[in-house]
Amino acid sequence: LHAALKHKPHITMDDGADLISLLHTDYAAQAKDIYGSMEETTTGVIRLRALERDKKLKLPVVAVNDARTKNMFDNRYGTGQSTLDGIIRATNILLSGSVFVVAGYGWCGRGLASRARGMGARVIVTEVDHLVALEAVMDGFEVMPMADAASKGDIFCTVTGNTHVIRKEHFAAMKDGAVVCNSGHFDVEIDMKALATSAGAPPKELRHSLQEYILPGGKRLLVLAEGRLVNLAAAEGHPPTVMDMSFATQSLAAEYVAKNKGKLEIKVHTLSLEIEELIASLKLRSMGVAIDTLTDEQKNYLASWEGGT
Amino acid sequence: LHAALKHKPHITMDDGADLISLLHTDYAAQAKDIYGSMEETTTGVIRLRALERDKKLKLPVVAVNDARTKNMFDNRYGTGQSTLDGIIRATNILLSGSVFVVAGYGWCGRGLASRARGMGARVIVTEVDHLVALEAVMDGFEVMPMADAASKGDIFCTVTGNTHVIRKEHFAAMKDGAVVCNSGHFDVEIDMKALATSAGAPPKELRHSLQEYILPGGKRLLVLAEGRLVNLAAAEGHPPTVMDMSFATQSLAAEYVAKNKGKLEIKVHTLSLEIEELIASLKLRSMGVAIDTLTDEQKNYLASWEGGT
Amino acid sequence: LHAALKHKPHITMDDGADLISLLHTDYAAQAKDIYGSMEETTTGVIRLRALERDKKLKLPVVAVNDARTKNMFDNRYGTGQSTLDGIIRATNILLSGSVFVVAGYGWCGRGLASRARGMGARVIVTEVDHLVALEAVMDGFEVMPMADAASKGDIFCTVTGNTHVIRKEHFAAMKDGAVVCNSGHFDVEIDMKALATSAGAPPKELRHSLQEYILPGGKRLLVLAEGRLVNLAAAEGHPPTVMDMSFATQSLAAEYVAKNKGKLEIKVHTLSLEIEELIASLKLRSMGVAIDTLTDEQKNYLASWEGGT
Amino acid sequence: LHAALKHKPHITMDDGADLISLLHTDYAAQAKDIYGSMEETTTGVIRLRALERDKKLKLPVVAVNDARTKNMFDNRYGTGQSTLDGIIRATNILLSGSVFVVAGYGWCGRGLASRARGMGARVIVTEVDHLVALEAVMDGFEVMPMADAASKGDIFCTVTGNTHVIRKEHFAAMKDGAVVCNSGHFDVEIDMKALATSAGAPPKELRHSLQEYILPGGKRLLVLAEGRLVNLAAAEGHPPTVMDMSFATQSLAAEYVAKNKGKLEIKVHTLSLEIEELIASLKLRSMGVAIDTLTDEQKNYLASWEGGT
Repeated sequence: LHAALKHKPHITMDDGADLISLLHTDYAAQAKDIYGSMEETTTGVIRLRALERDKKLKLPVVAVNDARTKNMFDNRYGTGQSTLDGIIRATNILLSGSVFVVAGYGWCGRGLASRARGMGARVIVTEVDHLVALEAVMDGFEVMPMADAASKGDIFCTVTGNTHVIRKEHFAAMKDGAVVCNSGHFDVEIDMKALATSAGAPPKELRHSLQEYILPGGKRLLVLAEGRLVNLAAAEGHPPTVMDMSFATQSLAAEYVAKNKGKLEIKVHTLSLEIEELIASLKLRSMGVAIDTLTDEQKNYLASWEGGT
Repeated sequence: LHAALKHKPHITMDDGADLISLLHTDYAAQAKDIYGSMEETTTGVIRLRALERDKKLKLPVVAVNDARTKNMFDNRYGTGQSTLDGIIRATNILLSGSVFVVAGYGWCGRGLASRARGMGARVIVTEVDHLVALEAVMDGFEVMPMADAASKGDIFCTVTGNTHVIRKEHFAAMKDGAVVCNSGHFDVEIDMKALATSAGAPPKELRHSLQEYILPGGKRLLVLAEGRLVNLAAAEGHPPTVMDMSFATQSLAAEYVAKNKGKLEIKVHTLSLEIEELIASLKLRSMGVAIDTLTDEQKNYLASWEGGT
Repeated sequence: LHAALKHKPHITMDDGADLISLLHTDYAAQAKDIYGSMEETTTGVIRLRALERDKKLKLPVVAVNDARTKNMFDNRYGTGQSTLDGIIRATNILLSGSVFVVAGYGWCGRGLASRARGMGARVIVTEVDHLVALEAVMDGFEVMPMADAASKGDIFCTVTGNTHVIRKEHFAAMKDGAVVCNSGHFDVEIDMKALATSAGAPPKELRHSLQEYILPGGKRLLVLAEGRLVNLAAAEGHPPTVMDMSFATQSLAAEYVAKNKGKLEIKVHTLSLEIEELIASLKLRSMGVAIDTLTDEQKNYLASWEGGT
Repeated sequence: LHAALKHKPHITMDDGADLISLLHTDYAAQAKDIYGSMEETTTGVIRLRALERDKKLKLPVVAVNDARTKNMFDNRYGTGQSTLDGIIRATNILLSGSVFVVAGYGWCGRGLASRARGMGARVIVTEVDHLVALEAVMDGFEVMPMADAASKGDIFCTVTGNTHVIRKEHFAAMKDGAVVCNSGHFDVEIDMKALATSAGAPPKELRHSLQEYILPGGKRLLVLAEGRLVNLAAAEGHPPTVMDMSFATQSLAAEYVAKNKGKLEIKVHTLSLEIEELIASLKLRSMGVAIDTLTDEQKNYLASWEGGT
């Protein structure tokens, strides 16, 4: 990061607001020369909004992370496939007929639950938010606390963004041979320390990314990729055909910043709807899909309706 | 409405901002006595926001329509089922193996497309918004302009909120025996006048809510409920087990207004997240579904993460 | 039936082997004048095979029931839709988010389970056959004994062809408000007498085809169509677009019998594959669907492969 | 094989009837010492039935391949998952939103079509059998000849058991970047010679199991595993949790042969229903699934119904 800033860039692409952090401290003198910065993570955006709220933000930033072309597609469609890919590569387990527990029903969880069901698994969802849990129920999934799901699942995958979602008491309740993995935020979603303590002995490496812990009494629990992101550790991450949208969002945001050099207000900008529509339209075109356009009559109808008449 | 206002109510429940309109014109004197009003339609909310923007709003209003407990559930899960119910009652057509064209992929369209697929239909989606169209593609649906879909569909259903989505040129391209209906906004989504003109002769009533138009050359088109909402006209509307959430939202909004008599700012309020969570939690409880709660450790993790550390 | 036989028909279409029964007893003299008879039920075919086995069969019969164009399509695709149609008309219950118990995973049960899931229900299957139960598990359904399912279901539907599948002990375990119906064989699948005895008082007619039984303690159970076939009693039976295949099978079988007058061996004939293929090809053509044909090279490959080289 | 026979086995497990072939030619003298042989392939069973028909069969054989515990499970549930696994490992392509062409709708094709849809693909099926094609239509898939599908597909997979299902004219019609693979019988389903001839130059190895052919005009076609079975070549084949059923079938068939030493008629035996039920019940038990058992009343009902009363 220091090296990057020593090159005195005009536009920065940030992950977690780390560059921005430096530009407000050690490299504060450079901030005025930056046309704008893009931020691609939720954590980073939160930091930026905190800076903005405290009126300390020194340069315009674009919350690329908040673009629907970024989060709605790679989180949902990418995670669904790549997580199952990681689980299958690590275990070669048959999903059909298995009981698959998805912890968290956000975009990642929805994608994963939908794909696991599509592969023939019976899916159980755990959640902490009542509205989201109700959507999962209405989507036909069984919803219950992890304490109840623990004894039912054959495969567990956390996608919550939170910490210690699968804990000591859950390991204790699991079936012999249960597979446990994480495709969420960091490697904190599964309480690996609690598992190591419960097991006593170090795990046995059965295959690449597949470790077997033996609990007192002989029960075996299979942990993938040591609790790190299973789609990155045991497979190849998201397919390029969905990451292309995230990268298009980044680069068009950069173009926007470059073209508006010196004109952008110092605040957290969201990507314009025009750019999002452009990315989606290019993606559709690349897939050979055409869609309707509004007729003049329809534009008038919507306009007058929006006007409330 | 006049009668309602002559009773000098303290709280009003509005549909389309019609009461509010009177309270800003003929009954303007009463506005100051109203604790607050609830609005349950999109159209109404748009009018209210226009009033607010113009600084003409005279009383606090709650945009009940914008609550997720209102629009995400009855639009999606209610419309999906009740629309198919209406189509089947009117026609007794087999959905399995049919080509089902859904015009519009909003909440209603998603619900309908998902349920039609679940009944064995092959679903084609038409859209005007690139981002939404891309979601439909990623969800596995075929997406194309109505001009192309017209010659492929066995059943067409509009859920766009727009006007004349199925027009003269589309009728001309349709297959003999195609079924055409609407479950969207008003009876304007299908251009019924164009169809009547194309047909020349008046339609034949084949069954309740099922009219047959014969086009030059002998092609028969079957229109349900004269283009009005097929789930209301040919079936019973949404099941009570999803409308309960909409009504709970209305009544808890009313309670909130009553409890905060005189304290609400004069503006368009959105329902608090607490009330939404309460409704969802009550609904889950009524279904016998329990969910997880955050541990203290998790609350701290989220808090510190939200703080950006 | 007597009237029919008094007309001295040359070809008969039978249901349950009742005509055949008369042609082997009171009207035995006529049997030799009949070119052949078609039988469209499982029960009838069983009777005919018993007659054949005992060498008492007096005329050629065609087991139309055994044609795949008959049983694989109307049982599976017809029953799935029409049963849900009956349940929704009788109750207007929301399937989305409900727990739907399907008793029996034969063709009818598969169709029903698949469609109920497609409408957003969480489906539990009960079975007595291990192989079939295992298929249900692999298809992603939860499988358990009725004794366990009884306390979990919101809606129960029997499609087993057996008797007293839902019994006194199951009613006792059900939730308040549970919906119970049958779409299987006859009205014997639900033990209605046991329910009546448990309830004490006669049921209350809530809507057409919807009766409420109140059990000691106040629990309400909702029975549809008095346990008779819910798709016939509360809806319109199978859509014509699937019955057309069953009727085509009947009429082409009749044509076959007529064309082969005097040449058919006296036994239970199964419909020739050629006729089945013809029906399927006509149905596909009516739907506008074309398929591939084998190349000469492929025919040779299959022939030589079948020869084992 | 020669080595195996030189050990003078009493029971043989065969694949493709190769051992049996030797036991009817070079090792004919040993045939009388063999208690029985198991055959696990369709091709082998066809050869055996040919031998039986010609009254040349010299020892009892069990058509293990015909057991439902063998073919209904690994073909359907195994192939569905392992084929997608192979495709994803070779290409890391996003299935969601892709057009996936499945050639052949047998057990393998059904499994594959169902799983590809479950992963978000839009599935097109090609078939040569009208009845089977009609089932695919009724299951909601688009059915068309390969000549039409060729220009629509993003991914093609053959599972027909036939030869040259994808040919020169199909390659010519495909889109730039189309992925072509086989998970059917042998490496003959895709006409690789025709592709090599069309391309002129040898293919480029892009990744393991992924070759790029460039056609005149510059169109790129991606072939996986040189047209051999993609689930074996690019992934790990079927998961053990479904192969266990096939192996259980083999070993229980062997036990049956051993226990009935000298008593088995010289013919092609099918595995008894009792053994199939045993395997299924053991598999269910291993998954923790219990099912219903018939009551005495139900047994009587079925017996009397089967008797025709």
